[in-house]
Amino acid sequence: MAAANGAHKDRTALIPFSSRLREGRALAQDVWSIFNAANLPADCINLGQGYMNFAPPKWVTKAAEDALNTVSPNHYSHPRGRPRLRQAIKNQYEKQFNRELDIESEILVTSGANEGQYSVFTAFLEPGDEVIMFEPFFDQYLPSVTFNAGKPVYVPLHPPAHDQKKPTSNDWTIDFEELRRAVTSRTKMIIVNTPHNPVGKVFTRTELENIAALAEEFNLLVMSDEVYDCLLFDNKEHVRIATLPGMWDRTVTVGSAGKSFAATGWRVGWLIGPPSIITPTLAASTRIVFCTNSPLQEAVASGLEQVNQHHFFETQVKEYEERRDVLLSAFDKLGVKYTLPEGTYFVLLDISNVAFPVDYPFPQSVEGRGRDFKACWFIALEVGVSSIPVSEFYCEEHTNIGESFARFAFCKDLDTLRAAGERLQGLKKFLV
Amino acid sequence: MAAANGAHKDRTALIPFSSRLREGRALAQDVWSIFNAANLPADCINLGQGYMNFAPPKWVTKAAEDALNTVSPNHYSHPRGRPRLRQAIKNQYEKQFNRELDIESEILVTSGANEGQYSVFTAFLEPGDEVIMFEPFFDQYLPSVTFNAGKPVYVPLHPPAHDQKKPTSNDWTIDFEELRRAVTSRTKMIIVNTPHNPVGKVFTRTELENIAALAEEFNLLVMSDEVYDCLLFDNKEHVRIATLPGMWDRTVTVGSAGKSFAATGWRVGWLIGPPSIITPTLAASTRIVFCTNSPLQEAVASGLEQVNQHHFFETQVKEYEERRDVLLSAFDKLGVKYTLPEGTYFVLLDISNVAFPVDYPFPQSVEGRGRDFKACWFIALEVGVSSIPVSEFYCEEHTNIGESFARFAFCKDLDTLRAAGERLQGLKKFLV
Repeated sequence: MAAANGAHKDRTALIPFSSRLREGRALAQDVWSIFNAANLPADCINLGQGYMNFAPPKWVTKAAEDALNTVSPNHYSHPRGRPRLRQAIKNQYEKQFNRELDIESEILVTSGANEGQYSVFTAFLEPGDEVIMFEPFFDQYLPSVTFNAGKPVYVPLHPPAHDQKKPTSNDWTIDFEELRRAVTSRTKMIIVNTPHNPVGKVFTRTELENIAALAEEFNLLVMSDEVYDCLLFDNKEHVRIATLPGMWDRTVTVGSAGKSFAATGWRVGWLIGPPSIITPTLAASTRIVFCTNSPLQEAVASGLEQVNQHHFFETQVKEYEERRDVLLSAFDKLGVKYTLPEGTYFVLLDISNVAFPVDYPFPQSVEGRGRDFKACWFIALEVGVSSIPVSEFYCEEHTNIGESFARFAFCKDLDTLRAAGERLQGLKKFLV
Repeated sequence: MAAANGAHKDRTALIPFSSRLREGRALAQDVWSIFNAANLPADCINLGQGYMNFAPPKWVTKAAEDALNTVSPNHYSHPRGRPRLRQAIKNQYEKQFNRELDIESEILVTSGANEGQYSVFTAFLEPGDEVIMFEPFFDQYLPSVTFNAGKPVYVPLHPPAHDQKKPTSNDWTIDFEELRRAVTSRTKMIIVNTPHNPVGKVFTRTELENIAALAEEFNLLVMSDEVYDCLLFDNKEHVRIATLPGMWDRTVTVGSAGKSFAATGWRVGWLIGPPSIITPTLAASTRIVFCTNSPLQEAVASGLEQVNQHHFFETQVKEYEERRDVLLSAFDKLGVKYTLPEGTYFVLLDISNVAFPVDYPFPQSVEGRGRDFKACWFIALEVGVSSIPVSEFYCEEHTNIGESFARFAFCKDLDTLRAAGERLQGLKKFLV
């Protein structure tokens, strides 16, 4: 009897959790918990987390209400996603991909873009496979890779020179020799994120061509996180790496209804790619969540069906440009440097000139972290506007790059942004 | 340069998917695809898949509509779940657990019960850890374990003796010596499922005490899948293994709004357990899905808040008893044996007496599978009622146990069940 042969364990011991939780900061107190509204003064204006303080359009939510009042859209959807939504994604996006998309094998609806990306890692990573990500990186990538036994490899985007007068997100650059040096025989995947959170960078065609050439040379899978694809400013062109020559077969592109329709809590995203990537990812996603919630899939389908008649994405970009400009003009008035974002709803403020007293009563949670953790805490408490320290989006060795920046989200209504802008003038006396 | 040192790969090769997809039937055509409505005659009555052909109650969906028309419930929820829903779960269930539940550390809302269970495996399994599951098992368990590098170990529930006249699900029994022999030094977890899908078995207090004693002896984590906890018939008592002496600390209990409120497509579930289990599982779930969709969490919260005033669960049980009895009386009239279910909305029909021609035009997909695959196909095509072959819920070595049974779901309205019952009389001429 196997059980009799030494299987007896210490019954007083807690059952240990998996060692995969010891990696990738999985159990560390993350930046979102530290800078959670509950930890900050009640009247603090929250420009930290990237969710809107406005609702999705009524003509989008209407279809969810209709779904709730019928039968089948309250029940399981196909793990691939509801046919109506896959058809709407095809109709909306296939021109941008320069190809016909097959809704049976090239589109997968996921429970948020996050679960889609997690499923790609589950579907493709072998233990020890390396995944290259550019720093600063969306913080979920790191544990999502390590939970699936992969190894993150970091390549920094290099910030603008310190003396550059009016840097834009385009001044954050890739050292392609450095990128090439990061490739090893274990490299399986590279993550591209354009427009880029938190830098706001829109990768140029040339940059993407260089990445594509490397992916071709070393047979890498490219996960292109394009969840902000509808938020590019000043008529900037969104280039999809999947459309570059030879890249369709090795690229999976990630989209998000939450970002597109101001509905971050709906948890509806999608993946677009070749059957060789979508089929294994479907197998993973089917086991992880089985399927995505049905009523909100109906709403997103209806939303995509109507975006053109409402000129929704065009109008939304103008609204975000206005929001961005309210915040930036407050920064200008204050006289602090920032990176002008070409996309997303984030802006990086250069906080190296914000001086705070060393004996300020900081909480334990920001001690031992980058200087930016203290600066963001200080700004939140002194002037009442919260932001997110950017060193969280770097590996430990590269903390020093991130700690010069705070990320402010401008996915908020104009009044909130104006009020935040006024409060931020209170920083003047702390600038050196 | 690492890249120069032999990293060059064959650029014509497809990027291989992870070997974890080669295990646990992850890429096999599953029973749901084979017996999908699309593959069966258009007028076939679907008693295969376990979703309702009726809608959730209006007083439940109402709160989702309200949420859609406000701001914050359209945006991210806390990864633990919305406070209102956690509070409603606490209020509804803590009496059944004989303890106060802490909504900050002992309740976790998940994107369906499925994702909750997947997250437990992610949080606790080391490569090679063994997970004991009773056969027939809910088919998602197997790949969910192997995707997280665990090893499934199967212990069959033993079916009633063939000559037993009117078997009930209580006649499916555990051989506890066999269960003990299945424990090794690598056993980490045991999955209990009560009421049991597909058998309909409600585990007795004595059975659960025996399992609990083994879990204590070998320091095992118990995942108790109780998603049908509101569907016990004939005043049968639902015993939660977490409430047995000493078991709270090692048990995580799984619940489902989809089953409770006829809303399988909402993807809202929950876990209840001690902080030592919930905290690591939260870390996993946060990375896998980040959070669960917000509007339907609001609806479920509102639903749980109102179940008592509507006597909802009591009424729902009576409705399901009536549905069950319509189907069973059709089986009785036909003169075929079945297992009387004490819970869930499934019934196992003994199909060993259904004779089908060996030269019947079966599709390729059922060839080489258990006899039950052919029987279910034959029944669907000949009389127009689809069901699910039960050998799918057994490991390969135990296929022979499952192939005597077909699973019929009675989560359908009475008219549908009556029509199915009439059609099933057409099987009479094929009985031997």
